[in-house]
Amino acid sequence: MLDSVKALNALASLNRWAGFEVIRSDSGESELRMVWRDTDMGQYAGFLHAGMIAAMLDTACGFAAVTLSGHVMASNFSMSCLAPAVGNEFVAHGHVVKAGRRQVFTTAELYAHRAGADPKLVAMGTTILVPTGEPLSVSPAPAGSAGR
Amino acid sequence: MLDSVKALNALASLNRWAGFEVIRSDSGESELRMVWRDTDMGQYAGFLHAGMIAAMLDTACGFAAVTLSGHVMASNFSMSCLAPAVGNEFVAHGHVVKAGRRQVFTTAELYAHRAGADPKLVAMGTTILVPTGEPLSVSPAPAGSAGR
Amino acid sequence: MLDSVKALNALASLNRWAGFEVIRSDSGESELRMVWRDTDMGQYAGFLHAGMIAAMLDTACGFAAVTLSGHVMASNFSMSCLAPAVGNEFVAHGHVVKAGRRQVFTTAELYAHRAGADPKLVAMGTTILVPTGEPLSVSPAPAGSAGR
Amino acid sequence: MLDSVKALNALASLNRWAGFEVIRSDSGESELRMVWRDTDMGQYAGFLHAGMIAAMLDTACGFAAVTLSGHVMASNFSMSCLAPAVGNEFVAHGHVVKAGRRQVFTTAELYAHRAGADPKLVAMGTTILVPTGEPLSVSPAPAGSAGR
Repeated sequence: MLDSVKALNALASLNRWAGFEVIRSDSGESELRMVWRDTDMGQYAGFLHAGMIAAMLDTACGFAAVTLSGHVMASNFSMSCLAPAVGNEFVAHGHVVKAGRRQVFTTAELYAHRAGADPKLVAMGTTILVPTGEPLSVSPAPAGSAGR
Repeated sequence: MLDSVKALNALASLNRWAGFEVIRSDSGESELRMVWRDTDMGQYAGFLHAGMIAAMLDTACGFAAVTLSGHVMASNFSMSCLAPAVGNEFVAHGHVVKAGRRQVFTTAELYAHRAGADPKLVAMGTTILVPTGEPLSVSPAPAGSAGR
Repeated sequence: MLDSVKALNALASLNRWAGFEVIRSDSGESELRMVWRDTDMGQYAGFLHAGMIAAMLDTACGFAAVTLSGHVMASNFSMSCLAPAVGNEFVAHGHVVKAGRRQVFTTAELYAHRAGADPKLVAMGTTILVPTGEPLSVSPAPAGSAGR
Repeated sequence: MLDSVKALNALASLNRWAGFEVIRSDSGESELRMVWRDTDMGQYAGFLHAGMIAAMLDTACGFAAVTLSGHVMASNFSMSCLAPAVGNEFVAHGHVVKAGRRQVFTTAELYAHRAGADPKLVAMGTTILVPTGEPLSVSPAPAGSAGR
């Protein structure tokens, strides 16, 4: 399953650009890691851009959902930014709350990691995903696929 | 005012990377344009990534808010994805609904533009922003500032 | 159509208790009125309770949706409270933004009316509704139905 | 603290009408119970009305927040309805995620209880609350106050 989700991750050009790394993805749970770059991920004050916070939360929700429901499309997304997103790397944890036939309800949290400090919760989000009906391919990703 | 917001836009490294262009920003309204790139902005199926949809909606909300309330930080963001975000370029329109002293309530819509077709509403969002108390600089952007 | 939605309104026991009155409901739009009662609708400071604000916004969204999509169930609801909800009566306006086959996206605004003052926007909301597949009955409501 | 929150609960006329009972409220957590009445709490199909789901989630969030931040006003509220809200009684659990000076971020879950069955999660929500600056009175509620 993890290989299938890694292959799915590699299909998304933004995920490759951002360097999203799938650490875990099974049984309705996921974990996604990204290393901070100040050259192209910041908002005006130099914190992680809200769009990247959203991208990580939404993707973690999606990678939790696909383990139970196959391919999905984001329908509704909401997040609260709890603290300035400052760190060397960021880790998002996604969870399926309910995998319905027509809608999958998920939540996620984003933690900022800094050298020598405990991970800090900087944002939390909720995503509603709609299954497309297409099953997640469980065959191994093709050799040479990007981002693996 | 437009020059000040363009200068603010140029401070954000993600905005420069994405090529966000501020078309309008005054009196609680804003308009933001971005040209699509399939090399680094897509989700797995090749549509605009939900994180970029969020980035555009949230930024348009912020650039509407700064015209009335000075510098702001995103606190809560929500969006609905109404249709697959497919287009050659995308334009977000932001609006202030209420500029309170402690919270600024804003909404935005994202339109996909395709050659030979009417713009299509693909997403709508709501952002709550918190004023930092720092006024928006109204001096002209420094000569040579990036992206403008 | 208005009679059908009035009949639907009369089926909901909370709507009868609250005295919801359907003023308009057609073509993806609705208007819902309620007279304020301080005896059972208030929060601790005497304003309209957030639950009643939600009830009016969500119901106005639903009554806009049924005109296009038949019976629906609320799936996701969000609202922002823009000002203390104080008034003699409240009017909610609902609008369909997109009536999809699996999800209907709607928005609503709530206005407080006070004698001698302009209506004041006190809250805005967004509801995602899921069609149940059951068409809205367009026959007249049965004689003697409650709340009419 | 529990007595103070019970006194606050008794000040809200909707809470008295609905029979909200504060079971727990301390250290950023709360628990709120309500007995179902089909005569005035239902939507058209006879389930608990979305407005009452919102009222319980929002109130549980508020009663978690007041334990840390004094009096608060709801600013933004969102919820997902996960399953039809059918039960003999309903219990909402509220939690503070972050108690900031200007905004308090909270979440809540609503469980439906039915005789002979396990409690069922029917809805989850998020509320952003703004402290009014007024401390929660910690004196005992007046003798004879309603709803205790």
